[in-house]
Amino acid sequence: MPAYKAPLRDFDFVLNELIRVQDTIPTLPGYEEATQDIFASYLEAAAQFCENEIAPLNRSGDEAGCAYDPATRSVTTPAGFKDAYRQFCELGFTGLDCDPAYGGQGMPKTLAFPIMEMQCSANVAWSMYPGLSHGAYAAIHAHGTDEQKATYLPHLVDGSWTGTMCLTEPHCGTDLGLLKTRAEPNGDGSYSITGTKIFISAGEHDMSDNIIHLVLARLPDAPKDVKGISLFIVPKFHADGSRNPVSCGALEHKMGIKANATAVINLDNAKGYLIGEPNKGLACMFTMMNAARLGCGMQGLGLGEASFQGALTYAKERLQMRALTGAKCPDKPADPIIVHPDVRRMLLTQKAYTEAGRALTALLALQLDIEEKHPDAEARQDAADLVALLTPVAKAFMTDNGYTATNMGMQVFGGHGFIREWGMEQLVRDCRISQLYEGTNGIQAIDLLGRKVLLDQGAKLRKFSKQIHKFCEANAGNEQLAEFVGPLSKLLKEVGETTMGIGMAAMMNKDEAGAAATDFLRLIGHITYAWLWARMAEVAYAKLGQGDDAFYNAKITTARFYYAKLLPEVESLKAQIKTGSKPLMALDEDSFAF
Amino acid sequence: MPAYKAPLRDFDFVLNELIRVQDTIPTLPGYEEATQDIFASYLEAAAQFCENEIAPLNRSGDEAGCAYDPATRSVTTPAGFKDAYRQFCELGFTGLDCDPAYGGQGMPKTLAFPIMEMQCSANVAWSMYPGLSHGAYAAIHAHGTDEQKATYLPHLVDGSWTGTMCLTEPHCGTDLGLLKTRAEPNGDGSYSITGTKIFISAGEHDMSDNIIHLVLARLPDAPKDVKGISLFIVPKFHADGSRNPVSCGALEHKMGIKANATAVINLDNAKGYLIGEPNKGLACMFTMMNAARLGCGMQGLGLGEASFQGALTYAKERLQMRALTGAKCPDKPADPIIVHPDVRRMLLTQKAYTEAGRALTALLALQLDIEEKHPDAEARQDAADLVALLTPVAKAFMTDNGYTATNMGMQVFGGHGFIREWGMEQLVRDCRISQLYEGTNGIQAIDLLGRKVLLDQGAKLRKFSKQIHKFCEANAGNEQLAEFVGPLSKLLKEVGETTMGIGMAAMMNKDEAGAAATDFLRLIGHITYAWLWARMAEVAYAKLGQGDDAFYNAKITTARFYYAKLLPEVESLKAQIKTGSKPLMALDEDSFAF
Repeated sequence: MPAYKAPLRDFDFVLNELIRVQDTIPTLPGYEEATQDIFASYLEAAAQFCENEIAPLNRSGDEAGCAYDPATRSVTTPAGFKDAYRQFCELGFTGLDCDPAYGGQGMPKTLAFPIMEMQCSANVAWSMYPGLSHGAYAAIHAHGTDEQKATYLPHLVDGSWTGTMCLTEPHCGTDLGLLKTRAEPNGDGSYSITGTKIFISAGEHDMSDNIIHLVLARLPDAPKDVKGISLFIVPKFHADGSRNPVSCGALEHKMGIKANATAVINLDNAKGYLIGEPNKGLACMFTMMNAARLGCGMQGLGLGEASFQGALTYAKERLQMRALTGAKCPDKPADPIIVHPDVRRMLLTQKAYTEAGRALTALLALQLDIEEKHPDAEARQDAADLVALLTPVAKAFMTDNGYTATNMGMQVFGGHGFIREWGMEQLVRDCRISQLYEGTNGIQAIDLLGRKVLLDQGAKLRKFSKQIHKFCEANAGNEQLAEFVGPLSKLLKEVGETTMGIGMAAMMNKDEAGAAATDFLRLIGHITYAWLWARMAEVAYAKLGQGDDAFYNAKITTARFYYAKLLPEVESLKAQIKTGSKPLMALDEDSFAF
Repeated sequence: MPAYKAPLRDFDFVLNELIRVQDTIPTLPGYEEATQDIFASYLEAAAQFCENEIAPLNRSGDEAGCAYDPATRSVTTPAGFKDAYRQFCELGFTGLDCDPAYGGQGMPKTLAFPIMEMQCSANVAWSMYPGLSHGAYAAIHAHGTDEQKATYLPHLVDGSWTGTMCLTEPHCGTDLGLLKTRAEPNGDGSYSITGTKIFISAGEHDMSDNIIHLVLARLPDAPKDVKGISLFIVPKFHADGSRNPVSCGALEHKMGIKANATAVINLDNAKGYLIGEPNKGLACMFTMMNAARLGCGMQGLGLGEASFQGALTYAKERLQMRALTGAKCPDKPADPIIVHPDVRRMLLTQKAYTEAGRALTALLALQLDIEEKHPDAEARQDAADLVALLTPVAKAFMTDNGYTATNMGMQVFGGHGFIREWGMEQLVRDCRISQLYEGTNGIQAIDLLGRKVLLDQGAKLRKFSKQIHKFCEANAGNEQLAEFVGPLSKLLKEVGETTMGIGMAAMMNKDEAGAAATDFLRLIGHITYAWLWARMAEVAYAKLGQGDDAFYNAKITTARFYYAKLLPEVESLKAQIKTGSKPLMALDEDSFAF
């Protein structure tokens, strides 16, 4: 595998030519200084850090994993991880999009997201230490008291402390209503928290001075379901330096992201502080969760990019067989495998999914920035609605496609793809978790169809559809784009009909929604990418003849590939959705046997 | 994960009710004694061996892997592997379908294949030691001289010696024409062989007294391409007990099948013996390769079954959320996750692919037995044609579906699926190689479309289509089967048209075949499974009311699921094939960049 190279040219395309963040970002209060030059210099610095500091630790980190010492209950991260984190802090990246009031650099998400993608490509296991920490920052910033903010945020921003999200327990993942960890008031405003949390990413490590756990627990007499869950701040060390009895009981042995410490966290009358209102912990946690879901999507994206870089390089170097149409490199013992249509199919699948995912990420980042900073309430609401609608799509569609992409990259290598030293199989293993955590992709599908589409009678989806419709109308007479706009218009109509059909059926039987959800999410994912690819082709056509034709022609060619070879999946999805829930529900549980 | 349980009831269904092997097998010369009772007793014995001896070594074998000692160039297999192999030999399984003239039990493939499936489910890494050995047996049996047979076969049959296939070299996998290993005549009928082979499964280990390597190499002045490759027998130890300089230089570090020794084999003037004719080595090797490809398919099948067993058990036990239609188990804190349509979608996908794969395997085994033993030449040819056509389908479709199935099984477990102790992620990792070795699945697709379909102007495919057509005609008036026969007839017509379309396009441009191949293979896979599911439904309807209705109703229900939720993939495949090669070939190599 070649050394990772940050896709700076494509970031430039997506941010400045496609999404045109400069038309909006510097107009938002607080982002006046986030100019194109500033973006470019941050991206360049982040690229250097990712390429030179963390990418070289990716393979070694996977081989070494994290070490747990039961005597001290401490965790040692792989060699180099701690130093890289120190540099990351020194470069100010831990506080990149954090509030300047607490030492942050106040940069927008439109800048932070590409930098997160680069970290995921270079070393996803490493990226999760600052990633989880940022989630804790966001939750405290949104829901903490002024005193809590003053106590924790400066340390989370400068990176000297890190944070975690402690949700899952052995018997409850998706179903947080089953949560057992309990919080007893101590009488002094603090609480005494007892329980066991599992799957706590970055739950214990040697990279920071303190770890701030955000823990879901139940107050005495709280309602038994999700309405009885509260959120608590539980620091590893108290302000006086004394140890809080919140400790790592073990590390999980996992398929991938082995260099990230996935901890069992035991709370044994650990002292914690309520954050937000009692029994409203789930809502507070969703501040972190929604960001984490987009973070997952970026893992799929970043790993797909890394795999593409490896596979493309190999496909140009590996000589094997002749092109079916006759030797392309008669001077060599065989042709490079990139001459074979099926190898190209795999490379283009990686490229098309990755570049569309990058565009979606930038689009969502811009909406998040608008949602946070725009002076106009309607603009904020529109942005919030689009983010709400597309967050489950970004999480599930981008991670499923990332898994497809990393598997294809491995497949391009043939048998060598299975060998650890090449690095391609690690990308597959590291990607696999992104489909599982922060709500499995099946849960994302239910969230999309149930909460985001059916619950508001399709209002958010109609708003989004209107954007696509406008694009199609505006380009109705554009001959160059006709090959995209035609199918996109047709699909838009079909998506409307399909959604209506599911909605009608689900009114009679809720299982109809459950049965359609996963196919529906892919359908929405595909129309989103089809729209983005048509827009990318539009931009590329406009730029032809201005000096970088190879790049823009590649965009147009990849758009065509997407419409020809990936978008047709919607034909299957529509057909599957039509068959409804009966084929899934007919088999009674007892007959389901082996 | 639950302990593996051999699917004996489904073997009985497939062998005795669907494929009805007893109508044919005992009528074939040499298989007179392979009665239903004999089958049942062998299957029972194999089930016990797989369940009790090798399944318990699967997780520990993955964790321990094989150990290589550079000083002695020897390999130690994981604890228990050697003992299990000794028992396997003592039970006579190494010689199950081997020639009685050399100590074999002379049983048919229709019995051997289900036993192979069980081994793959229980411990695929272990199964490869006897598996590769059987390939070496088959090649020597088919192509060896009487003396070679007398020397090697009895030991391979009783399992005291094992064998390997040595094809791949660092610079050549698919493209064996690039092979560099050379064989110099010693003047005494033997050859002196020098070169490096990689990816040699079971290439070195501690389970047998001797290892017989079958090595592809070039004679002096042989043609430079695949027509200049010869096959050699290279034993680890000579008859006098002396060591031949063929040794293990290293073991690969792999994503999965870690308990199988994947060796680098160095030949340093190793003494070898030509097997078959000079320069015809590739044809000899294909005796092993075709069997190995079916073996790969069975790996996908067996691992899908194992994953299904794990996922189904978990889905019935894991309590999480309530059914969308209201609580199903109000006395429990939550419903078992099998109530959720999306979980059922994953379980039924595993079940539908696995059971159809099992049926296909039995069908092909019967054809292999007919091809080998039938007194009538036309019957042999028909059987051979079907095997030739469907071998790449069995290899690629069954392994791709096996990978899908193992990933879905892991997904059913949510985050727990990613944890090694549960065993579900190992099935994914162990399955991944089956898509890569013995010819990548892309190569299978080219083999199917190019060599098996277009090369004989569709003759073999027409013969197969006729069988499906006959089934549809015979059931044209069957109301119960109308839901299957209707779509199957329609698909049969479409497959004919699609094949014709590809053939016409490929005459003008060979890349059209390369571009369509992978989609075409899945199309043929789907029509094969659709036909088998319709046939399974037919059998199940006929058996209703005879005392095992739950089993037969599950078959009918699963057939419906297949037609509703998996078969619609053909809609995408047809659409993708229609777009041809241009979307794949348009991007010039230099513009393919990052």
